[in-house]
Amino acid sequence: MGVAIVGVGITKFGEHWKSGLKELIMEAGIKAVEDAGISGKDIELIVGGSMSSGMFVGQEHTGALFTDYMGLSPIPAIRTEAACASSSVALSTGVMAVKSGRYKCVVVGGVEKMTDVYGNLATTALAGAMDRDNEAHFGLTFPGVYALMAQRHMHQYGTTREQIAMVAVKNHENAMHNPNAQFHRKITLEDVIKSPLVADPLRLLDCSPIADGAAAVILVPAEDAKKYTDTPIYIRASSQASDTLGLYTRPDVTTVGATINAAQNAYKYSGLGPKDMHLAEVHDCFTINEIIGTEDLGFCKKGEGGRLVQSGETKIGGKIPINTSGGLKAKGHPVGATGASQAVELVEQLRGEAGGRQVKGAENGLAHNVGGSGSTVVVHIMSRNRK
Amino acid sequence: MGVAIVGVGITKFGEHWKSGLKELIMEAGIKAVEDAGISGKDIELIVGGSMSSGMFVGQEHTGALFTDYMGLSPIPAIRTEAACASSSVALSTGVMAVKSGRYKCVVVGGVEKMTDVYGNLATTALAGAMDRDNEAHFGLTFPGVYALMAQRHMHQYGTTREQIAMVAVKNHENAMHNPNAQFHRKITLEDVIKSPLVADPLRLLDCSPIADGAAAVILVPAEDAKKYTDTPIYIRASSQASDTLGLYTRPDVTTVGATINAAQNAYKYSGLGPKDMHLAEVHDCFTINEIIGTEDLGFCKKGEGGRLVQSGETKIGGKIPINTSGGLKAKGHPVGATGASQAVELVEQLRGEAGGRQVKGAENGLAHNVGGSGSTVVVHIMSRNRK
Repeated sequence: MGVAIVGVGITKFGEHWKSGLKELIMEAGIKAVEDAGISGKDIELIVGGSMSSGMFVGQEHTGALFTDYMGLSPIPAIRTEAACASSSVALSTGVMAVKSGRYKCVVVGGVEKMTDVYGNLATTALAGAMDRDNEAHFGLTFPGVYALMAQRHMHQYGTTREQIAMVAVKNHENAMHNPNAQFHRKITLEDVIKSPLVADPLRLLDCSPIADGAAAVILVPAEDAKKYTDTPIYIRASSQASDTLGLYTRPDVTTVGATINAAQNAYKYSGLGPKDMHLAEVHDCFTINEIIGTEDLGFCKKGEGGRLVQSGETKIGGKIPINTSGGLKAKGHPVGATGASQAVELVEQLRGEAGGRQVKGAENGLAHNVGGSGSTVVVHIMSRNRK
Repeated sequence: MGVAIVGVGITKFGEHWKSGLKELIMEAGIKAVEDAGISGKDIELIVGGSMSSGMFVGQEHTGALFTDYMGLSPIPAIRTEAACASSSVALSTGVMAVKSGRYKCVVVGGVEKMTDVYGNLATTALAGAMDRDNEAHFGLTFPGVYALMAQRHMHQYGTTREQIAMVAVKNHENAMHNPNAQFHRKITLEDVIKSPLVADPLRLLDCSPIADGAAAVILVPAEDAKKYTDTPIYIRASSQASDTLGLYTRPDVTTVGATINAAQNAYKYSGLGPKDMHLAEVHDCFTINEIIGTEDLGFCKKGEGGRLVQSGETKIGGKIPINTSGGLKAKGHPVGATGASQAVELVEQLRGEAGGRQVKGAENGLAHNVGGSGSTVVVHIMSRNRK
């Protein structure tokens, strides 16, 4: 059985000092419900991702929170968590729920509230995505994890500081056309390279920002999709893979094995390959990770990711536009909402509703969402075409 | 498509000062794998519940942790969270995964590490299961929530202090025969009633203890079950419902609407009713909740729960033995592991392998797992018979 998306909703990403989890969820959820033209009573299940709502704002049990504040009790709700891939896991779980035949209309959402919280929790909470005992305990942070990957990539493949910075420049440019993006500010190569050092070689403008935000999509069986909308977007593959929790046990830190695994399964399952994709959202929590992602997803050969971004082919108008939304870097990265927001971007693009950032004639798109240093990777392939 | 359990594993519940999440997961997971007679390469998906591993030990991303430390990468892992119902939601998600046709062998687990953590986190972390902004913020704790329910139940139905205490006495008695229970100590009515006051009328011995522990079960399609074991236990219904996150918005605090909803759906789906059950694990986080649970599950009329426990019919040997494992009260309540541990108890009972606590001739059993004050409730009905 196929599964289609018939509605999407998203908040602006950024600092929402007047909104907590509830307000963010309600805004994204209600927008998605309205977009699908359904009413609350049509919804049979909620699957919601959030990473560390407990540490950030002291609120667990966010599934029941979703249901309650969307006025949908007594329907069941599942909260999923897989670090920064939490809401892509929600999406793949929602797809499974529809495929099980039990649920005909499922809301999948993601939310995170990271700003305006007690103290400086971001680094502490985010470290929960790595191997706490064997990495965070010794002082490793996520900028540090990705800096290690960047250093090795530069050493092994000759990737340059400038190529890495080009990811940020491109994504900030794309975000200019995304009204929901956190940053609407063009930056230059020099801005990136002269921004404050965070973890060598990564600088401030290589890092995605913490943010508040939520996103939601409505899933139905593919055969029902046209009842809801003239422009359903079909989920052609939903694929997840794991790797070791710690970076330190992997044979090669310039590649994310779980991306290769999840992508190969997604391509096999959908019958589509990287050359069939008209755009991709690639997990650029740090600039280097977009470069590694484009390689592991098969958009170029291993080691060629730096040259790919330099070629301009990942810009809108290029062969394979990457992160048309602005990516995590410029759209913002409210961790539990990121996977769902990638799905929203693909749907808007494939419907032809992406405004100034529209990829012309986009028919197939891919979303790549990474948890931790690649311990969880989820790849979704979506299409305007059912088969 | 039906789903069966072909293997179970559980750690002792209690204080494991030398074990973290990893060690607990590995012990329960390996026992379940060995019990099913499978090997790691047979497993296609892990669904694992934990409530607040981030707040307790700074580790999120416990799905990938499961996969990594059970040596099962690159298979996907889903972490579910629904407060104290986290691993029952994992079980229902695992059931859905098998029903989707995509996975033929799924490990469902639950884990929590609550002792030997920084400071006194239990109350703070557990408060994440209630409506943080509108309940915990004003000082309400979980003993307080259930004390409110108890006071009203006593007022409305004449439930007595002694009847409530009988739940603890019975469950401690049952736990004497459960080698994995946290407490092996008989207690008397007087012990309960004279134990230190926590939140009037609830006293120390009315409260389940914090604990460390893990439990796991192996799911396969029902039609494959006999390939693995001569004694598969079939999941006849897997049903979940939600209610408002906060207790304060409910019309009646002596009943848990989500229990009624989930149970009625489970009975309908399985074709079995409360009178067909030979035993039930009922969520006794506080003694009063077993009384409310037996009513809402239909084992007696509303308001009769106190008299039901007093009648002795919920003891082993009675009409409907409740919490043969010792329940949360005496077996222990490592919150994220509790739902999975209820499933383990049902399987051991229905297989006839429950030793000194065996319910003779048990063919059907029910597990009832509550998140928060009843914001999430999951009911599973299991049977020796496929239909």
